[in-house]
Amino acid sequence: MDYEAKFEEAIDALKAEGRYRVFMEIGRRKGAFPNARHYDGDAERDIIVWCSNDYLGMGQHPDVIAAMEEALHTNGAGAGGTRNISGTNHYHVLLERELAELHNKEAALLFTSGYISNDATLSTIAKILPDCIVYSDELNHASMIEGVRHSGQKKLIFRHNDVEHLEELLAQSDPDVPKLIAFESVYSMDGDIAPIKEFCDLADKYGAMTYLDEVHAVGLYGEYGGGVAEREGLMDRISIIEGTLGKAFGVMGGYITGTKNIIDVVRSYAPGFIFTTSLSPVLAAGALASIRYVKHAGDLRVKHQERAATLKQMFRDADLPVMESVSHIVPVWVGDPSLCKQVSDELMQKFGIYVQPINYPTVPRGTERLRFTPSPNHTDEMMQDLVVALNVVWESLKITRAA
Amino acid sequence: MDYEAKFEEAIDALKAEGRYRVFMEIGRRKGAFPNARHYDGDAERDIIVWCSNDYLGMGQHPDVIAAMEEALHTNGAGAGGTRNISGTNHYHVLLERELAELHNKEAALLFTSGYISNDATLSTIAKILPDCIVYSDELNHASMIEGVRHSGQKKLIFRHNDVEHLEELLAQSDPDVPKLIAFESVYSMDGDIAPIKEFCDLADKYGAMTYLDEVHAVGLYGEYGGGVAEREGLMDRISIIEGTLGKAFGVMGGYITGTKNIIDVVRSYAPGFIFTTSLSPVLAAGALASIRYVKHAGDLRVKHQERAATLKQMFRDADLPVMESVSHIVPVWVGDPSLCKQVSDELMQKFGIYVQPINYPTVPRGTERLRFTPSPNHTDEMMQDLVVALNVVWESLKITRAA
Repeated sequence: MDYEAKFEEAIDALKAEGRYRVFMEIGRRKGAFPNARHYDGDAERDIIVWCSNDYLGMGQHPDVIAAMEEALHTNGAGAGGTRNISGTNHYHVLLERELAELHNKEAALLFTSGYISNDATLSTIAKILPDCIVYSDELNHASMIEGVRHSGQKKLIFRHNDVEHLEELLAQSDPDVPKLIAFESVYSMDGDIAPIKEFCDLADKYGAMTYLDEVHAVGLYGEYGGGVAEREGLMDRISIIEGTLGKAFGVMGGYITGTKNIIDVVRSYAPGFIFTTSLSPVLAAGALASIRYVKHAGDLRVKHQERAATLKQMFRDADLPVMESVSHIVPVWVGDPSLCKQVSDELMQKFGIYVQPINYPTVPRGTERLRFTPSPNHTDEMMQDLVVALNVVWESLKITRAA
Repeated sequence: MDYEAKFEEAIDALKAEGRYRVFMEIGRRKGAFPNARHYDGDAERDIIVWCSNDYLGMGQHPDVIAAMEEALHTNGAGAGGTRNISGTNHYHVLLERELAELHNKEAALLFTSGYISNDATLSTIAKILPDCIVYSDELNHASMIEGVRHSGQKKLIFRHNDVEHLEELLAQSDPDVPKLIAFESVYSMDGDIAPIKEFCDLADKYGAMTYLDEVHAVGLYGEYGGGVAEREGLMDRISIIEGTLGKAFGVMGGYITGTKNIIDVVRSYAPGFIFTTSLSPVLAAGALASIRYVKHAGDLRVKHQERAATLKQMFRDADLPVMESVSHIVPVWVGDPSLCKQVSDELMQKFGIYVQPINYPTVPRGTERLRFTPSPNHTDEMMQDLVVALNVVWESLKITRAA
């Protein structure tokens, strides 16, 4: 059996489609974000990062760094075990308390990543409810799709953010079986936002639970950064709010919040939670400091939105095909995987501007794009330079200017 | 639909069985391991940890701490993105190179945890090989079981470490379909070791790939800490070696090593790798420093084995029911979940000794045990105190002394 040949074939298929991924090796520069260093073999150069999910630059915030340094020197590097076997650290407990409070829930549970929090929670909750049907938005994140699949329960996919279609599916279902509606608030590749209230109304009407992924919203929306559900006064209507410590909070890890019973069930039954070394106390300490800061940093949230709005306007003014987005995400249309990669390569090579091409499977084929994430640290001057560079590349590669 | 009642029911079932888990909240003490602090509500006290997987105490090693501090101050807290979207850090690249070298493989791939490395790799590799059959040891870790299940391919379970049974299953299979034999080197709850050579011989004979989980062996066995496969000169006969950065290396994260093509397939196709914020550069830097130190720390490995052998002998001399183990794991038999928890509680309350009860689903029902993991930092005096305490508890609870 020639296994190597089979693996090569799988790789060649990606290359033929123009979506083989080459990772850009960078060194972040604490204190100078979004400035960074690009490593290319032995060569190094300075670049500006335009595609990071460290949305607020909290990964370099002095409070976060200080908290991590302290935990490193008092507790050491790792947790040393699973949560159950010597790996529950004082920081985990404090952080879970803080997260529950952030979302106004009874309890919270930490995971090593947002990915595993979605996968473990959705699979466990749906599995534990006999004959549960999961109603899943068609653009849900891969980790949610995997979680629903791993539950082994029936899944019904509703059209993206489509309230009518969701109701149609709910109305057709047996009223007596458990139901779970799973969706995101901010969809990270388009920047649109779910009709959360309408989904909650349907959940009430049809007796369903609600599962909301706020990973691209926590820290960024709501008075205290609790996410879009906080902004819209809907947190108490969501059964499970899931979030991340690795984007706006600038560190790493994921979590869920909900009732004590929900959290206890996931804590007690989910293999992806039980059988894994817990989050390093250093990360937990950093995340805790970050949340505590971001909670009261309304000015940072305002600045963040202003930066995104400004960049969108500059793109529109320059006749660049910026896509519709009601959030901090600024996607620019290309529509072809090879071209998308070419744009990205030219921006990096000629201008030291780093924005990753977003191709399938992250977005549907034919909708390839660049995705900009301006932070409060991205200046007017950086934006002007970006627009100049994009115009040059758009001209030289003769790309459409229609979004 | 009363969802809360259903969740309560699920929790009550665990409580009725005596296996509801209460996490012990601790604070590790860098520089004083295995000394730690136990938090119980508002009360705090000093304890000795006997059940950590920070096997060598590397979580407090000066090289590791210094490397993490440096990365924290140069790069900041988090990676800021997935590996593909701005999240590939210089440290990741260096660490993957180091890991490939450790196992003498062409390439390596980092994950946020050992759990996800098993889940993502097994599911992806088995899925990409049409009609692949996976042969899985019956005591494989939950993350391997999940990975095989998620591949959707046919799974045949062979009796634990049973060469004959594995051959029987291989011989019955269609010679022309792809095959993958998945097993661990050190089984962490029993401390026994797989017949790796015999499994590799069968793989050759029947044209199968081999997948070896060395999470409880990397850093601890082999001249350079490459694991049991290194010790036995078998690394080149294993297709994929999987390991962790969170146990002997003292930090957090998981990885696989293999041929360039294998790594590229997992890198390119596994959702659990693609769609997740990458490992914090701080952790990657710490793990890199740890591996570089541990590679040349043969004396630490010798001391580690000596400590385990000494504790086993002290248990035998004291007529305590220590179970057979050919590794650094020292399990002591109890055989009942409630009793096991009671022993653990008494050790903590009366003696400040922390060893977690190991109950189902971590071990089969009826085989509940205490699992001691003496490190080079556990002194003779600590061991003597432990034996005294165990004898007191064994007498007071009238537990069997037969293993």
